[in-house]
Amino acid sequence: MAGNSFGTIFRFTTWGESHGSAIGCVVEGVPPLITLSENDIQPFLDKRRPGQSRHTTQRKEADAVKILSGVFDGKTTGAPISLMIENTDTRSKDYSDIKDKYRPGHADFTYDKKYGIRDYRGGGRSSARETAMRVAAGAIARKILTHELKQTISIRAAVIQIGPHAINRKNWNWDEIHNNPFFTPDKEIVATWEGFLDQTRKNASSAGALVEVVAAGVPAGLGAPSYDKLDADLAKAMMGIHAVKGVEIGLGFDCVATPGEKNVDEIRIGKDGQPLFLSNHAGGVLGGISTGQDIVMRVAFKPTSSLPQPRKTITTDGEETEIVTTGRHDPCVGIRGAPVVEAMMAVTLADHWLRHKAQCLTL
Amino acid sequence: MAGNSFGTIFRFTTWGESHGSAIGCVVEGVPPLITLSENDIQPFLDKRRPGQSRHTTQRKEADAVKILSGVFDGKTTGAPISLMIENTDTRSKDYSDIKDKYRPGHADFTYDKKYGIRDYRGGGRSSARETAMRVAAGAIARKILTHELKQTISIRAAVIQIGPHAINRKNWNWDEIHNNPFFTPDKEIVATWEGFLDQTRKNASSAGALVEVVAAGVPAGLGAPSYDKLDADLAKAMMGIHAVKGVEIGLGFDCVATPGEKNVDEIRIGKDGQPLFLSNHAGGVLGGISTGQDIVMRVAFKPTSSLPQPRKTITTDGEETEIVTTGRHDPCVGIRGAPVVEAMMAVTLADHWLRHKAQCLTL
Amino acid sequence: MAGNSFGTIFRFTTWGESHGSAIGCVVEGVPPLITLSENDIQPFLDKRRPGQSRHTTQRKEADAVKILSGVFDGKTTGAPISLMIENTDTRSKDYSDIKDKYRPGHADFTYDKKYGIRDYRGGGRSSARETAMRVAAGAIARKILTHELKQTISIRAAVIQIGPHAINRKNWNWDEIHNNPFFTPDKEIVATWEGFLDQTRKNASSAGALVEVVAAGVPAGLGAPSYDKLDADLAKAMMGIHAVKGVEIGLGFDCVATPGEKNVDEIRIGKDGQPLFLSNHAGGVLGGISTGQDIVMRVAFKPTSSLPQPRKTITTDGEETEIVTTGRHDPCVGIRGAPVVEAMMAVTLADHWLRHKAQCLTL
Amino acid sequence: MAGNSFGTIFRFTTWGESHGSAIGCVVEGVPPLITLSENDIQPFLDKRRPGQSRHTTQRKEADAVKILSGVFDGKTTGAPISLMIENTDTRSKDYSDIKDKYRPGHADFTYDKKYGIRDYRGGGRSSARETAMRVAAGAIARKILTHELKQTISIRAAVIQIGPHAINRKNWNWDEIHNNPFFTPDKEIVATWEGFLDQTRKNASSAGALVEVVAAGVPAGLGAPSYDKLDADLAKAMMGIHAVKGVEIGLGFDCVATPGEKNVDEIRIGKDGQPLFLSNHAGGVLGGISTGQDIVMRVAFKPTSSLPQPRKTITTDGEETEIVTTGRHDPCVGIRGAPVVEAMMAVTLADHWLRHKAQCLTL
Repeated sequence: MAGNSFGTIFRFTTWGESHGSAIGCVVEGVPPLITLSENDIQPFLDKRRPGQSRHTTQRKEADAVKILSGVFDGKTTGAPISLMIENTDTRSKDYSDIKDKYRPGHADFTYDKKYGIRDYRGGGRSSARETAMRVAAGAIARKILTHELKQTISIRAAVIQIGPHAINRKNWNWDEIHNNPFFTPDKEIVATWEGFLDQTRKNASSAGALVEVVAAGVPAGLGAPSYDKLDADLAKAMMGIHAVKGVEIGLGFDCVATPGEKNVDEIRIGKDGQPLFLSNHAGGVLGGISTGQDIVMRVAFKPTSSLPQPRKTITTDGEETEIVTTGRHDPCVGIRGAPVVEAMMAVTLADHWLRHKAQCLTL
Repeated sequence: MAGNSFGTIFRFTTWGESHGSAIGCVVEGVPPLITLSENDIQPFLDKRRPGQSRHTTQRKEADAVKILSGVFDGKTTGAPISLMIENTDTRSKDYSDIKDKYRPGHADFTYDKKYGIRDYRGGGRSSARETAMRVAAGAIARKILTHELKQTISIRAAVIQIGPHAINRKNWNWDEIHNNPFFTPDKEIVATWEGFLDQTRKNASSAGALVEVVAAGVPAGLGAPSYDKLDADLAKAMMGIHAVKGVEIGLGFDCVATPGEKNVDEIRIGKDGQPLFLSNHAGGVLGGISTGQDIVMRVAFKPTSSLPQPRKTITTDGEETEIVTTGRHDPCVGIRGAPVVEAMMAVTLADHWLRHKAQCLTL
Repeated sequence: MAGNSFGTIFRFTTWGESHGSAIGCVVEGVPPLITLSENDIQPFLDKRRPGQSRHTTQRKEADAVKILSGVFDGKTTGAPISLMIENTDTRSKDYSDIKDKYRPGHADFTYDKKYGIRDYRGGGRSSARETAMRVAAGAIARKILTHELKQTISIRAAVIQIGPHAINRKNWNWDEIHNNPFFTPDKEIVATWEGFLDQTRKNASSAGALVEVVAAGVPAGLGAPSYDKLDADLAKAMMGIHAVKGVEIGLGFDCVATPGEKNVDEIRIGKDGQPLFLSNHAGGVLGGISTGQDIVMRVAFKPTSSLPQPRKTITTDGEETEIVTTGRHDPCVGIRGAPVVEAMMAVTLADHWLRHKAQCLTL
Repeated sequence: MAGNSFGTIFRFTTWGESHGSAIGCVVEGVPPLITLSENDIQPFLDKRRPGQSRHTTQRKEADAVKILSGVFDGKTTGAPISLMIENTDTRSKDYSDIKDKYRPGHADFTYDKKYGIRDYRGGGRSSARETAMRVAAGAIARKILTHELKQTISIRAAVIQIGPHAINRKNWNWDEIHNNPFFTPDKEIVATWEGFLDQTRKNASSAGALVEVVAAGVPAGLGAPSYDKLDADLAKAMMGIHAVKGVEIGLGFDCVATPGEKNVDEIRIGKDGQPLFLSNHAGGVLGGISTGQDIVMRVAFKPTSSLPQPRKTITTDGEETEIVTTGRHDPCVGIRGAPVVEAMMAVTLADHWLRHKAQCLTL
């Protein structure tokens, strides 16, 4: 109700502020008897971790996750799993000057309007640091999916545009996404983006990014129409990530100008005797339920709102002023958004799998 | 859990199939002492009602809503409000031939995969006929907002593109949206669209549409971060509408290529002494909480999947075949989507208002 | 949130007032492919139906239930099932004099305090007439349990005390409960109760009742600790029935004076090689999870608050007055409570079965 | 869904095992701007803390609570409040012999049946140690009630019976409950109970207890009929406490034998011009909504199931055996149940207050 939780049967609740003593989450509804340790979670956190290239914030956080409950003898017990990451590099002094000013493009103004109080240190609760716990929950969700489905669902996100520079889809190679600091499948765009981001920094500017996520191996049947359609829940999951301003599935906005006869995905029988869709304009969801095709979405991240050039704003007392943000910030938050997008896909699928099992599958 | 409900404190649950005896919904959490009668709901249903122009389905439904509970002496009592619309024009014979075939682009295949059974008459539960109840619930949500806020929140949706033909935003005039069958604010596009849709029908084709919705007068402070952010819940509300494939807020996908210093909405103090944003690229939401500016979203509807030309599909027995849909269908479902988009905005705002009041406002 | 729903995965939402046009409910989360018709529900409603003996209200309601959605070709489809019963015998004039007075022991005062408005006709939303929909939902829950567990769970409630007159447990014979108007397993108490209730009516008084419910065949493992323990959810289910003031499980309140070594249910291995509890003081639940033993609860119903003798009360304007209730009322509401207790047991078990399957069972 | 949470708008989620590294909870929906520190919580924990008299377990736990989030500059921010207590005295060796045996009367058997795995150290997740977090959440709930209602609601629980020895209600003096190790208002029973419990220990036995809780100052109007009635939610709250087997409100089970005319609480106008109930047999709730009178409930705790005398049980491999529990245990768990009962009353009232405000109160 207060908005700190995601999911229904598989459900996690996060807590913590950017510059508090720790952040954490409680993960519930995890089936028992799944092998789980910090080693299953840490690699995903490491992908999202700040300070790994000059294109992301230089805040140094080990982001070392600890499991405090819900695992016994190396296996999940069905009890809630409490995860915690201690905050180590919290230079609160960096943020002292934003105490009395609203950073434009940030949640400072709205948190004050809503709550009448705001933990201004690093954005407090509204900081993207919170997404670390999404990634941790996503790692557990992946384990659940593998355990339950007895096969691995591949969930991969790729950055396909930074600022005005889009990749060439012909160069798409999933193997490349971990070979560059941008999670991009087009190795030929890397140099362009590096130059663009260096220039962006010189300009005291920041850049947006477009992320595409593909989930392959998702069984048909997931989704709870009419109001918890799989694509509706995925849209919520993605739009709720910090800095996201748009979400589309399959053809997405391009379907508006596509004639109906081209848009529908015709069906044949494949060589394996199974239904074979001749295209995937739907993006893997029809009527809110997964078709068994790849689920394909694109997620638009706005440019970082923290800028090292002056922007007009007001003080908390209603005086006009300017603000220059000098802290350590990603010039393009969308890059580190890719692991978060993957995580939100994973948690949504894990929850919908359990929901589907509950109502529709028989033992 | 099973997906038939929307909202938390203000919450409605719909039921019914396209060709069953009736459709309905139960609306809960409505504050008491609000004047309410069928006359408050019917006008919104009439806007969505089929058969009003040659550009929408010719199915004739009076869509006369009845209030069965929760209202006494003309006022809401706080008890659940049961609404019902009887289905009158249910020519089941029209649909007999889709019993054994999956219509591509529809939910036929996925409902069978999920449930192992499907009410094939007119799409059954997956029919867009269900959206009538969203519109009815939306009408009640508007009454709640007016009652609680003691002012009217204006919620208006406009069709701004059909197929490849976008409006000229310079012609935008809200007063026009009820003067044409397309809910468009650009009267100059009307002739173009009429010609385009006539041709679309001749081509046995169908067309997508882009709808923009604007909510003005929304108080700052609505939204429940981190997971029930206002924009996240709105994204879910919109993506869950039948045939929607994309959702964006404010600049939306265009923010990717916009430099950060241009994207952030700078703040000044207006003549009224109140904070004044110099732009609204955020679309009225920062950090998942409303800013007090207009909430502006765009929603992409795919072209109607029911097509009067043959499309490849399979039978329920797994045989390859073709299907031609000959029933009465909107060539462009997005047009009648506009009142549904308005309704989903209204229900989301009403719920978030009550949620905000519950946690953050003091009497 | 507004309190009209029960359950989580299996969930139903009721609506309607005692003297409105109809009452109804929407049942969600029902697995598909279960055969279901009105004939599966009506017999349970008939047991609860008023006017069947001189010991219950003489209001004549056919209580004929209609299924409006969610069933196709005689089978559940997984879509919400809408049930409706039209109110036929609504003599509103009977109730005109309670418009301005609060009936003591009833919800008149509290509804006014909460909502500021009250449908005074027959108690409106607070009427025990609402329990008809619980019984209907319970009938569907029984079908789910049988379908899912591939065996019948026996759920039977018995009236074991009326006023000061308790049954002799040595006479317990389940076969008797449908042979008398009291749902009692002790045929020898029937004459006593008939005399007592006749005298109660002559005294212009009313009587309480104690109901015991036993669910046999419940699999071990149901219940979601720590907060949705099976016994906690059952306690809520029972205490939420109109006129209930106490709930206990197993030994219940008697466990307070029982030494620990006698209270614990020792365990052996039975002839079938399965764990065998040597007693059932726990009432079939340990740590909030079913043991596989019978679930045994007792539920206390207060005497009917509507009395044909004057009681002191106040008017809605705060004037002191008296009230005599002359309408048609059960002198002992607990009798007709027995089918409702059974229903609430059934819906709780069905929900917890699906919850257990979702998290803990693998396909 | 997995049962680790309580409440809706005010909601807390607990985690942790008896012998894990820590226990904790996340408290959500707390209104902002309430002063809060560990000092507001610790006194309540100290009341529940083990090892304070020879009549409770000798496990030594400081139970020092830490606030990890959600409070800034000494005030709540509206963000989730994470609480943690580190486990310090976890002698796991005490429990090594129960690894392979099911303790009768405990959750060992049912956890294994449900999850197929069980953290056997001190009962793991099923340990009553979990109730510390209920008490912590209850302390925050009290702060909310005071802040919101601008007056203190008095919530006090008293032990009124231990084993067969009930207090004399004529001796009731609330001031006494913190003057003895039993939370009893009857100082004359103390010697009796001390002797009885000493003998109970000598007998290698254990004792049950009856707790009465009274909430005074609760405003009329709280409760969400029909399914989240205030008394129904309280029954769930109480029955969900470890070792509770029965719950009643007002007259409770005694209402069965009480004639209706005596049971109804007649109403007059008091000297203050407000409605005055002439009795409180209802226990402060009518139709599921608070009347404004004291809410009075009684809660039955079974005797401690851990016994230092042999009891028959089986091994996890299905062999018959005996078990003697030699760890540190309360001979009467109900005593330390009193602060937990208070806490569950507080959290239920805080949640229902916010729910009531959300739907029914206007600013």
